[in-house]
Amino acid sequence: MTNLSDLPLRDDLRGLTPYGAPQLHVPVALNVNENTHPIPEPVARDIVAALARAVSTVNRYPDREFTELRESLAGYLGHGLTRENIWAANGSNEVLQQVLQAFGGPGRSVLGFAPTYSMYSILASGTGTRWIAGDRDPDYELTPATAVRWVRETTPDLVFLCSPNNPTGTPLSLDTIAAVYDATDGIVVVDEAYAEFAPVGAPSALTLLAGRERLLVSRTMSKAFAFAGARVGYLAADPAVTDALRLVRLPYHLSALTQAAACAALAHTPEMLAMVEDIRDQRDRLVTELTRLGFTPYRSGSNFVLFGGVADPRATFDALLAEGILIRDVGIPGHLRVTAGTEAETTSFLDALARRGPAAE
Amino acid sequence: MTNLSDLPLRDDLRGLTPYGAPQLHVPVALNVNENTHPIPEPVARDIVAALARAVSTVNRYPDREFTELRESLAGYLGHGLTRENIWAANGSNEVLQQVLQAFGGPGRSVLGFAPTYSMYSILASGTGTRWIAGDRDPDYELTPATAVRWVRETTPDLVFLCSPNNPTGTPLSLDTIAAVYDATDGIVVVDEAYAEFAPVGAPSALTLLAGRERLLVSRTMSKAFAFAGARVGYLAADPAVTDALRLVRLPYHLSALTQAAACAALAHTPEMLAMVEDIRDQRDRLVTELTRLGFTPYRSGSNFVLFGGVADPRATFDALLAEGILIRDVGIPGHLRVTAGTEAETTSFLDALARRGPAAE
Repeated sequence: MTNLSDLPLRDDLRGLTPYGAPQLHVPVALNVNENTHPIPEPVARDIVAALARAVSTVNRYPDREFTELRESLAGYLGHGLTRENIWAANGSNEVLQQVLQAFGGPGRSVLGFAPTYSMYSILASGTGTRWIAGDRDPDYELTPATAVRWVRETTPDLVFLCSPNNPTGTPLSLDTIAAVYDATDGIVVVDEAYAEFAPVGAPSALTLLAGRERLLVSRTMSKAFAFAGARVGYLAADPAVTDALRLVRLPYHLSALTQAAACAALAHTPEMLAMVEDIRDQRDRLVTELTRLGFTPYRSGSNFVLFGGVADPRATFDALLAEGILIRDVGIPGHLRVTAGTEAETTSFLDALARRGPAAE
Repeated sequence: MTNLSDLPLRDDLRGLTPYGAPQLHVPVALNVNENTHPIPEPVARDIVAALARAVSTVNRYPDREFTELRESLAGYLGHGLTRENIWAANGSNEVLQQVLQAFGGPGRSVLGFAPTYSMYSILASGTGTRWIAGDRDPDYELTPATAVRWVRETTPDLVFLCSPNNPTGTPLSLDTIAAVYDATDGIVVVDEAYAEFAPVGAPSALTLLAGRERLLVSRTMSKAFAFAGARVGYLAADPAVTDALRLVRLPYHLSALTQAAACAALAHTPEMLAMVEDIRDQRDRLVTELTRLGFTPYRSGSNFVLFGGVADPRATFDALLAEGILIRDVGIPGHLRVTAGTEAETTSFLDALARRGPAAE
C-alpha cells in the first residue's frame, strides 16, 4: 500500500493532519457554531423553486460575475453599498484565501491576534504567507494600543481582525479597527462572520468603509442565515479590491446552484434572521448560567460562548458526548466552547453540565 | 476613485487581466465547450428533489468527506475504483489547483505541452509553481519520444497531460502517458475532462492507474454530464493522493447542494450520457464539413473542433457573432475553435460559415 510519505509531497506539508472538527452524528451538535434552526419551510420552498430554475440551465457555465448575488448581498448589507463593492466565494474561507492570494504570498506576512480563528494560519501557510500571531489583552480583549503596537512592531502586509473573535466570542471596538487601519499601509480584513449576533445597535465595520480603500469586511451566510451547507462567504470593500480578487479567483468559482440558493435566501432576509434573536437569548442565557455554575464565560457578541474554569476539559467533553451533546475543545487549557442552540438544545447542555457538578475551583 | 494600482497588490499580479471568455447572451453559444443539451426533464426532477432534501438541513455544514459523492463517482468510473480513490472539488480547476498546492508550489515546476488548456499556467502562477511549456509534434500530436524528451530535459515536479487536448481536440495515446510516467519521479496528471467524447472503445488513462501511485486522472461533470453550472470536477488516483489533497483543501469545500445534485445526476448516468452520442456525431460532422469548406480541422476526441485555414480569424469571429453565433478565438493564428452543439446549432454555424465564402487558400 502506498503511503503519503511515498509521494512527492511539498516539504512544508509533511507530517500535517487535515483541519477539521470531528463530524459525529449526535442529537445535540453544538460544536461548530452552526445555526441549529433549520430554515423556515416557506423559505425553503422558494429556495428549491430557485434551484429548479437553475437546474434547467445547469448545462451552461454560471454567471462568472455572480451579478444578481452581488446585488442581493449589497442590498442586504445596506450602508450605501452597491454590487461593485461586493465579492463572494464558497465560504468565507475561500474569500480569505483569495485575499491572501492577491495581497499576501511568498515574502509577505499577515498579522492576527491569538487565540483566533484557526483557519487564518492554515490559509496563510497554504498561500505561502508568513503568519504572525499577536497577543491579546486580558480576557481576550484587543485594545487599540495593543493592536497598534503589534502592527508597528511587525509591519505586516495584511492584518486579520476577527470581530467578534472566534473562538473567544470577544467583540472588537471600531476604535481598534480604525487605529489598526491608520497604523498600516497594508490590507485590513475585519472578519464579521458572526456580526448579526452582536447586540442590537452595535455598529459594524461596514460603517468604516467609506474613504478606507484598504479595509475589507468579510461576512458569511453560514451562521445568521443558517446556510452553512450552502457555502456562501462574501466581503464588502472598495471596488478596486474586487478587481484584485478577480485576478486570483478560479473562473466560475460560484456554481449556478449556489448563486440561485443564496439569492432566494436573501430575498427572505426577515424570515431568515428571525431566529437570530432566539439565538442571542440563548447565548446570553449560557453566559448567565455558566457563571451560576461556577465557570468563567467571556463576553460574547457571537452565537457561541467560551468558558474557563473547566478542571478537565477532555473529561467534560467526553462526558457530554456520552450524553449525545457535542461541544468543542478549542485547545485553550481549562476552557471549552459551546454554540448557542435552540432553547431545548441549550437546556440539554446546561443540565448535563450541571449534573457533572461544579466547575473547578 | 481608488484604482487597482493604489492597492498593495502582489507584484506578479500587476498588469494582469482576469481569465475568461466573454459572457455574451447569443442564440448559438459554441464558445466554451459546454454541453448545449439541457439535462433531461425527468432527471432534472430527481435532482431538484435531492436538492430539496439538502435544503432541509442546509443550516448544518456539509459532509466534509463527501462520502456519498465519492462513492457515486467511483461507481460511475468503474475500473475497480472505490471511494478511497476519488477526490472532488468545485470544478476541475479547483482539483488541479489543489494538486499544485500539494505537490507544486515555490521552487517546484509543472510541465505541459502547448498549446494546451490555458488555465494550467494560470493555476501554476497562482500557486507559485513554475510553468514549463513543452512543444508538441506536428498537428498538435504528442508522441512518447517528444514527451519523454521534454520530461528528461526539464525534470519537472509535475506533468499535466490534457487528453484529449484543449484547445486542439487531439487525443493522446496511453503509450505517451505510460512513457511520461516512467520518465519522471514526479506527479503525472492526465486531464480527461472530455474523455466521454472519445471514440467508443478508446481506453482511458484510468486503465493505467493500478500500480502507478503518482498517476492522477482528472475528470469533470461539466461536459458529458451537462453540469457546467454545478461545478463538479474530480479525480481518481491512489488513496495516498487523496490524503495529500485533504491537507490543502478548504474544509467543507463542497457544498451540500453540490453533493446532492451531483449524486442525483450520477444515479441517472445512462440518461445523462444519452446526448454524448449526438454530440460525437455533430463533432464528426464538423470535421467533415469544415474540410469540405476548405478549412483544416484537426482530429478531435472531444466535443469541439479546432480548425486552421482561417484567413482572418477576428473577422470571421465577428461575422458569426453578428449572426448570433459565438465561437472561440483561442489565439492560434489562422485558427478558430467551435463546440459541437445540437444538430440545429451545428447547422447554423456551418451555414453561416459557408456564407462567408471559402477558407483562405
